[in-house]
Amino acid sequence: MRLISFLQQGKPAIGVATATGIVDLTAADSIFPDDLGAFVRGGEALRIAAMRVVESNAPRVDEASIRYLPLIASPGKMICLGLNYQEHAAEGGYQRPEWPTTFLRCGTSLTAHGAAIIRPIVSEQLDYEAELAVIMGRSIRHATVEEGLDAVYGYSCFNDASVRDYQRKTIQWTMGKNFQQTGAFGPALVTADELPRGAVGLSIACRLNGNVVQQADTAQMIFPVGETLAMLSECVTLEAGDVIVMGTPSGVGHARKPPLWMRHGDTVEVEIEGVGLLHNVIEDEPASRPESSRAAA
Amino acid sequence: MRLISFLQQGKPAIGVATATGIVDLTAADSIFPDDLGAFVRGGEALRIAAMRVVESNAPRVDEASIRYLPLIASPGKMICLGLNYQEHAAEGGYQRPEWPTTFLRCGTSLTAHGAAIIRPIVSEQLDYEAELAVIMGRSIRHATVEEGLDAVYGYSCFNDASVRDYQRKTIQWTMGKNFQQTGAFGPALVTADELPRGAVGLSIACRLNGNVVQQADTAQMIFPVGETLAMLSECVTLEAGDVIVMGTPSGVGHARKPPLWMRHGDTVEVEIEGVGLLHNVIEDEPASRPESSRAAA
Repeated sequence: MRLISFLQQGKPAIGVATATGIVDLTAADSIFPDDLGAFVRGGEALRIAAMRVVESNAPRVDEASIRYLPLIASPGKMICLGLNYQEHAAEGGYQRPEWPTTFLRCGTSLTAHGAAIIRPIVSEQLDYEAELAVIMGRSIRHATVEEGLDAVYGYSCFNDASVRDYQRKTIQWTMGKNFQQTGAFGPALVTADELPRGAVGLSIACRLNGNVVQQADTAQMIFPVGETLAMLSECVTLEAGDVIVMGTPSGVGHARKPPLWMRHGDTVEVEIEGVGLLHNVIEDEPASRPESSRAAA
Repeated sequence: MRLISFLQQGKPAIGVATATGIVDLTAADSIFPDDLGAFVRGGEALRIAAMRVVESNAPRVDEASIRYLPLIASPGKMICLGLNYQEHAAEGGYQRPEWPTTFLRCGTSLTAHGAAIIRPIVSEQLDYEAELAVIMGRSIRHATVEEGLDAVYGYSCFNDASVRDYQRKTIQWTMGKNFQQTGAFGPALVTADELPRGAVGLSIACRLNGNVVQQADTAQMIFPVGETLAMLSECVTLEAGDVIVMGTPSGVGHARKPPLWMRHGDTVEVEIEGVGLLHNVIEDEPASRPESSRAAA
């Protein structure tokens, strides 16, 4: 099943993407919430109810007519891995790590499939990062690898767009990873039953204006999904609706000579085999106030 | 006004701490939510309504009878500063920074005033960090220092308890800063009108088993509150209910020779002049499953 979040007549809704169109779950039955995180926390009961709606004669909406929302607008937590593909760690000058390198993203940093990724006025160094996102279906703590994988609800695509000068202004990357409306998340949550266990062995690519800039296989991760969930759950309870973003392969713009930055009007796509194609355009942040006023600060 | 979050007959509630006891706002009127973040997002209307309830003959609850909850259980985002007092940056071997060093905390890492801070089974290196927390009252982006200060709802105490070996396992601190139930937050949100602008010039201390282990003045911050809000708002929208945690002074346990770690049964207090006294006990995490089962992972 391919679950999506979208705007319907100005209000958030969740639905299922099918070969014949989008089934609007929120409109179909009041048992369905308007937030995909809440749907996931509803567990098997809601998943089965959604399958029944899809199998019924529920009306289909044309995908071209909808506006996507970030897949989960405000995850309980979103833990992102850095340096999780060997070649990417090497291109940044890092050694192979012994433990997953992590940072968090907040909800205000997210953007939707089909929406803009914003190039902020304070930086020219906006970079792409194609990543696999893992959405938890159940709580785990001190989990084994197999328990971790059993608790996965499904997978999606993520573009961990990063503002490199702010990422490197200090020794902590967080601020460069949390600019407003930079992390593209979607289009769909593909339930785990539709993919290989741990989403291993899938091709993952990033294309900038149609040119392939990253190309790898999810089997090349240093810490695969199950191992990552087991290790993170030593530290924290991973809860239903939490998101783990699995790091990016080599080919990022800041490691190129000369560097390759995303600019206003560019199109960027993240495609993961069997998971989906996440499409975004780059837009410059509008100048929010006159320069003289900002300087007065 | 001193706002608190607490459990009332097993359910979350918010209230006002007064000289004569706690006024339960959630019980007083259905206009009040049971979550302090939602109350803050309600703005002036709810603040004035709360003051009216306090001035009425609303019943008082004995503070000794209540169980506190984390001040805001699940902030939209919680941005924490590191290395924001010169002596503390120096004791960790860091240079004076040019920009605030930041990381995020997630909701599952928080704990309440009077509740336990958990020493995880995977580490002995649990350390204290006394900090000032800033709670935003309005959204700001590209704010001046004065606009940032105008948008502050109030202040509280925070103990940014850190698991040092996990903090230093990789180059990113996030995991050591997000262990389950380590970040103590409370007891009360003191509205900005009760404190100096920017909460500057307040004594801040940490006591471990009654011994003073950190002692400083909030005027010693490298990046004061207003400057921090202005700088962070270059990158992100700070929203009502978001929390900024302002970093810790020198004296932390890992910088001592020998290091000083918190252990089961210890009591730790963070006290900030005019803001409050945050009290916690340290408890070992129970072994959640037999060692043989964990080893099977």
